[in-house]
Amino acid sequence: MTLLKPKLSREVAETIAAGGPVVALESTIITHGMPYPANLETALGVEAVIRENGAVPATIAVIDGELRVGLVHRELDELAQAKRVVKASGRDLAVAMVKKQSAGTTVSATMLLADLAGIDIFATGGVGGVHRGAEQTFDISADLTELGRTKTAVVCAGVKSILDIAKTLEYLETQRVPVIAYGTEDFPAFFTRKSGYKADHRLDTPEEIAEAMFLHHKLGTGTGLMIANPIPEAAALTPEFIDGTIADAVREADEKGIGRKELTPFLLARINELSRGESLKANIELVKNNARLAARMAVAYAALKKSGR
Amino acid sequence: MTLLKPKLSREVAETIAAGGPVVALESTIITHGMPYPANLETALGVEAVIRENGAVPATIAVIDGELRVGLVHRELDELAQAKRVVKASGRDLAVAMVKKQSAGTTVSATMLLADLAGIDIFATGGVGGVHRGAEQTFDISADLTELGRTKTAVVCAGVKSILDIAKTLEYLETQRVPVIAYGTEDFPAFFTRKSGYKADHRLDTPEEIAEAMFLHHKLGTGTGLMIANPIPEAAALTPEFIDGTIADAVREADEKGIGRKELTPFLLARINELSRGESLKANIELVKNNARLAARMAVAYAALKKSGR
Amino acid sequence: MTLLKPKLSREVAETIAAGGPVVALESTIITHGMPYPANLETALGVEAVIRENGAVPATIAVIDGELRVGLVHRELDELAQAKRVVKASGRDLAVAMVKKQSAGTTVSATMLLADLAGIDIFATGGVGGVHRGAEQTFDISADLTELGRTKTAVVCAGVKSILDIAKTLEYLETQRVPVIAYGTEDFPAFFTRKSGYKADHRLDTPEEIAEAMFLHHKLGTGTGLMIANPIPEAAALTPEFIDGTIADAVREADEKGIGRKELTPFLLARINELSRGESLKANIELVKNNARLAARMAVAYAALKKSGR
Ligand SMILES: [Mn+2]
Ligand SMILES: [Mn+2]
Ligand SMILES: [Mn+2]
Repeated sequence: MTLLKPKLSREVAETIAAGGPVVALESTIITHGMPYPANLETALGVEAVIRENGAVPATIAVIDGELRVGLVHRELDELAQAKRVVKASGRDLAVAMVKKQSAGTTVSATMLLADLAGIDIFATGGVGGVHRGAEQTFDISADLTELGRTKTAVVCAGVKSILDIAKTLEYLETQRVPVIAYGTEDFPAFFTRKSGYKADHRLDTPEEIAEAMFLHHKLGTGTGLMIANPIPEAAALTPEFIDGTIADAVREADEKGIGRKELTPFLLARINELSRGESLKANIELVKNNARLAARMAVAYAALKKSGR
Repeated sequence: MTLLKPKLSREVAETIAAGGPVVALESTIITHGMPYPANLETALGVEAVIRENGAVPATIAVIDGELRVGLVHRELDELAQAKRVVKASGRDLAVAMVKKQSAGTTVSATMLLADLAGIDIFATGGVGGVHRGAEQTFDISADLTELGRTKTAVVCAGVKSILDIAKTLEYLETQRVPVIAYGTEDFPAFFTRKSGYKADHRLDTPEEIAEAMFLHHKLGTGTGLMIANPIPEAAALTPEFIDGTIADAVREADEKGIGRKELTPFLLARINELSRGESLKANIELVKNNARLAARMAVAYAALKKSGR
Repeated sequence: MTLLKPKLSREVAETIAAGGPVVALESTIITHGMPYPANLETALGVEAVIRENGAVPATIAVIDGELRVGLVHRELDELAQAKRVVKASGRDLAVAMVKKQSAGTTVSATMLLADLAGIDIFATGGVGGVHRGAEQTFDISADLTELGRTKTAVVCAGVKSILDIAKTLEYLETQRVPVIAYGTEDFPAFFTRKSGYKADHRLDTPEEIAEAMFLHHKLGTGTGLMIANPIPEAAALTPEFIDGTIADAVREADEKGIGRKELTPFLLARINELSRGESLKANIELVKNNARLAARMAVAYAALKKSGR
């Protein structure tokens, strides 16, 4: 059975064909992460950062049941305003196609579609992980399994601190996924530069990370890589503030009986309210910071692939 | 290394070669699920339902160490009466071959052999899942991992209610397996039409499900699909009755210190006794109902494949 | 992308090319498991056992960033005395290459490199497993996932009794890994011949095990096999002694707050002290015993492959 080829924008198709650097971007940040027009502005801003750093951005989404890689301005704008857009993880894509739905793609779906399209690097905010209380609920994001199964390298600011970071790191180890921190010994915690846990590896240049990716894939493990890029100092929230805020939001969710699928959106919205918008600002900054690193990695990786080693 | 080709019955071989619709069936229901001759009658009845709906049945088993796909009447009868037949999960098949054993195949083994034979759809009663108490015992069926790794679509009536359904659904999500309910929003609970949990997706025709399968496989995830088909209204047990009965049986098992491998057969046998045979009748009806849907899906899927899209 | 070919020693390369029997060996036992010169003596002793039983040993390690399969005497000696050698699991290999590090390879890394080199059988002491308390910590060795994903057959003396053996067996079942005990019904517990748990399968000759490997791989599951070989009677420690010693060491670790990565080395070192060297002696004997069985399996497996069945 031949695999599906998602529909690529002309720019993305030409860049891939020429072996040039492309960075994939997810779209739940547009469809479910922010209100209009902040979502559109952020999407455009992130794409601009990728271009400034020498690569071509490829925002991934499902539009009217069609798998799309690379959206032009008008399409981004339509997606940013669209109603009735669902959220699709990798396992939801086929049904979204059958139902001709539009969907924002999660980390797992974006990894999968990037890989199908031939894109090796993907920038996002934070990946899903092991939820607090997962020892009882078994609530563990498919993103972690996808990282254990699909070759895309994911540049993120660590995992969201509403998750159980220690368990997430153990799970990634069990799934055999390399976790590489950029320019630091610490595994970052999304809004803050430190999580209290060390990353397995530290590399200090995009070129070294690209080389590690290249060698890792040549080992044939089939796994992706997590590249953990701490939020810029200036944009970081203080650990005390964010920990307290998360604790408050978790308590509130508990009291209101909010669980499972509603929990993450509730916590993120509540944290934003409690932080008076500071967390949203930090979120935008860290995504741009990840886009920057991803673009530089993509440039180095494209060169490595061309070198034909 | 070339893969093993199981021995196909002539009818199954010819149908596969012609691209016609085939539905795989497991055999632990024959070897370990029911007494003779009820097991034989059920097996024949299920095969008849598949034929009535336009597909060819392929019961899968290991006979004297040989992997078999498609049994004729005489062979089904022999298997239904055989003594010393073991139960083989996927990982037990090679040893069964070395020891020249006969074996009923579980869901995981049947998926694997169906896939090796080139059969895409498999009908059964209920798949294995996460056991109650698995947060302590780690007792999680290999069926769930197989669904995350082998492309066969499994038509079932949900997972048995002796399992932890919430954890099973979380585990399937983590394994990236699409869970599609047929004609309902609810994830069914084997003997009853509702489990209290929603399915991720609802599709209303065998043709739509076949299309979702087709598209899903073209994404290259390598996972199977779970198609959850609720037991027919008329055959369903009442939730109060079955929940109480299961609770009684679980308590009894606990008191008698019955655990691990003995637990599931004990619970199923005890539930049947406590229900005075009602649960067995329901079991037979739901398997036939699944065979019907699977056959109709197989007809649609064969047409899709032939269309060469 | 073509896969990396590790650098093979001339002897190993020639034997593989000729379809002859080779047994892979890990190197953390050399770099992190024993002091010099005990580590070198053991390594040489284990290699000698493999040769005596008709196969060629291939110790696997990373030397100055290069993946190596098959070390000559001088190289083993250098590795045994080397300082600043890290421990590399499969996911650490690429970074070790980028950083030009030397590394002892764990079970998961050794399986991966053996498979890349074309070696089917690997002898070690004990594989990693599910740690005690993993229901809270999620600390589960990548070795178990590797067994679920890489075809190498691993000959071991069971899993170390500092682990949670019951959970490890459940996890292997969920990962679909065949567990075959050699010449016994019991799953062994490293220093002792019994763990209190049964193995799934018993086979009594290296030839039968080789045949099970051969057939298992032809099923296309992609998993490895665990061959559990009990420590020789004469070398075994008594269960009472070892259980008490482990309980003491675990309590001590707990009091000192030793956890995660430091825990296993601490426990093994402490058990060795408390046993006045008896556990180290037993460890050496069981590795040699595993090397013997692995070599005999390799001879039988090479013959099977040549037979072209
Ligand atoms: Mn979840
Ligand atoms: Mn089980
Ligand atoms: Mn660990």
